[in-house]
Amino acid sequence: MTLNIRGYAAQTATTPLAPHDFIRRDPREDDVVIDILYCGVCHSDIHQARDEWGGSIFPMVPGHEIIGKVSRVGSKVTTFKVGDMVGVGCMVDSCQHCASCAEGLEQYCDEGATWTYNGRDRRDGMPTYGGYSERIVVSDKFVVRIPEKLDPKTAAPLLCAGITTYSPLRHWKVGPGTKVAVVGLGGLGHMGLKFAKAMGAEVALFTRTPGKEAEARRLGADQVILSTDPAQMKAVANHFDIVLDTVPNAHDLNPYVATLKRDGTHILVGLLGPLEPPVHSVPLLMKRRTVVGSAIGGIAETQEMLDFCAEKGITCDTETIAIEQINTAYDRMLKSDVHYRFVIDMASL
Amino acid sequence: MTLNIRGYAAQTATTPLAPHDFIRRDPREDDVVIDILYCGVCHSDIHQARDEWGGSIFPMVPGHEIIGKVSRVGSKVTTFKVGDMVGVGCMVDSCQHCASCAEGLEQYCDEGATWTYNGRDRRDGMPTYGGYSERIVVSDKFVVRIPEKLDPKTAAPLLCAGITTYSPLRHWKVGPGTKVAVVGLGGLGHMGLKFAKAMGAEVALFTRTPGKEAEARRLGADQVILSTDPAQMKAVANHFDIVLDTVPNAHDLNPYVATLKRDGTHILVGLLGPLEPPVHSVPLLMKRRTVVGSAIGGIAETQEMLDFCAEKGITCDTETIAIEQINTAYDRMLKSDVHYRFVIDMASL
Repeated sequence: MTLNIRGYAAQTATTPLAPHDFIRRDPREDDVVIDILYCGVCHSDIHQARDEWGGSIFPMVPGHEIIGKVSRVGSKVTTFKVGDMVGVGCMVDSCQHCASCAEGLEQYCDEGATWTYNGRDRRDGMPTYGGYSERIVVSDKFVVRIPEKLDPKTAAPLLCAGITTYSPLRHWKVGPGTKVAVVGLGGLGHMGLKFAKAMGAEVALFTRTPGKEAEARRLGADQVILSTDPAQMKAVANHFDIVLDTVPNAHDLNPYVATLKRDGTHILVGLLGPLEPPVHSVPLLMKRRTVVGSAIGGIAETQEMLDFCAEKGITCDTETIAIEQINTAYDRMLKSDVHYRFVIDMASL
Repeated sequence: MTLNIRGYAAQTATTPLAPHDFIRRDPREDDVVIDILYCGVCHSDIHQARDEWGGSIFPMVPGHEIIGKVSRVGSKVTTFKVGDMVGVGCMVDSCQHCASCAEGLEQYCDEGATWTYNGRDRRDGMPTYGGYSERIVVSDKFVVRIPEKLDPKTAAPLLCAGITTYSPLRHWKVGPGTKVAVVGLGGLGHMGLKFAKAMGAEVALFTRTPGKEAEARRLGADQVILSTDPAQMKAVANHFDIVLDTVPNAHDLNPYVATLKRDGTHILVGLLGPLEPPVHSVPLLMKRRTVVGSAIGGIAETQEMLDFCAEKGITCDTETIAIEQINTAYDRMLKSDVHYRFVIDMASL
């Protein structure tokens, strides 16, 4: 038996998303079947649906910020039961035996993780389809539990935007006394502010747009720095331990690097592409500063992040849409017209 | 009383070095006067003598790999006495009160360290003059002790080439089990091989030139990888913990970054300039890899490095020259025709 699924798909890189019926595998013994309630809309959904990174698999059902209820479990699944509120993020499988997998860092799997959509299942080779759909079938190891205290709708983007900012802040030991600056105030950036603040750091926002002061402070910023103002940038030279750079487009890192202390770390989480204009080496050498990248987080850390959110009362700021509004939502995202994440209410399907 | 000093100087950015008499300050109460025996020749001497970094102060007496004997001490100097064999590296002073100075990382002084030459003394504002001269006057805090077991001549380049490679290997905790690759086999690179090996690491050399196998192995490499051979590069993908990049000229970092494991670190110690061609972010994000810079080392760490060299029997491979050969030596360095560091025997002055 296979599952007939309704969803929304891009049939080609140039067609808008539209209703699409497709088949998912019959659950294996370790699989969890999830009836999807909400799915967040990530900027990378647009990149991949439009084949902007190359190699896209069509038809494509995007979506990797998935929340839903377990409707069925495979014979060997013991950690989840029907009715549980669960989540699925960017990955649905990994090799499970390399050093990174063994350490719970499945996103860095030596053989490459299996992505939730626009990938291929590593066991049967079939394309993976994401959360813009009514139901998903996922190995239990890649399912996380949504704490009761979290609203499932606003929790959905935690599975990508949340973990992508939480993981590096934890890895680089942000806490009381740490000075963190977030670059960019979008889906990732607004979570970066919330997490850094909740971890006890002193938090700043770099922005190119005046007028975001009150909003940034509401989200956790202690300070807002207009990065286009040389005087404001100079005032924070050698100041931050961490710059969390969430900007997805090409941009000049050098002005931000200059605001790092000795041994400070500029963490890229949004940009996929060449670092142009080029980073200059002298500010790296003369203060032993680091430029580094970080990708989402492992499954155990994703669960930790969800529990942290429940404990601290952290959610994403979302705008709920119906699935038929998805193409309009993409257009609005490209104009940064969203505060800060669209979430599809899958009841609209 | 001021000291009349013989030395060699560049009078302008385009004139060869030539004999030059100049004045050094009368020793202050914390100063040590050192009769210079040997001075190593660093690639940065050429850059600065030819004003390739801008802002050079002329006449310029280069040289920051200085070994000599104490000939006089100021009234408050207690740690050195006449006759001691001592060394001076790239710095002769720093603010002594910022966080970096307090941690013994004077090279990252918030106010900027005072460089041994082509700088200005922070107390009297006079230009600093380096080791291509018969005598130097230096605050005792910036003088290190040369262990008896070290040959002063081959130890001279340890003060720059040595500490520049030793410091990052220590800071990033190289030891048994660590896989280190050194890029470039010059003054810095050959020391990188020796130190990494002596610290117990598994050591590789990346080179663009075939035929360096035996030489690299003699210096400590367990493996030599021809970086122009895609098959050899592919064989070490995701392999190293540390890439120690000593190349002083613009070069593509991306092929080396690809050889780093997850959480691996590409350390720049030689390049001063923009990272062109640009570093690509995806290999950073997808393996949480780091690009970082490191500059020389602090005074306490320089002493530690010298003691380590004495203990392990490590010296630089040098070719001794007379001071009148300095311009020829510069020409040969630009053709990489030196194994691996020229050292001026100052008796020739």
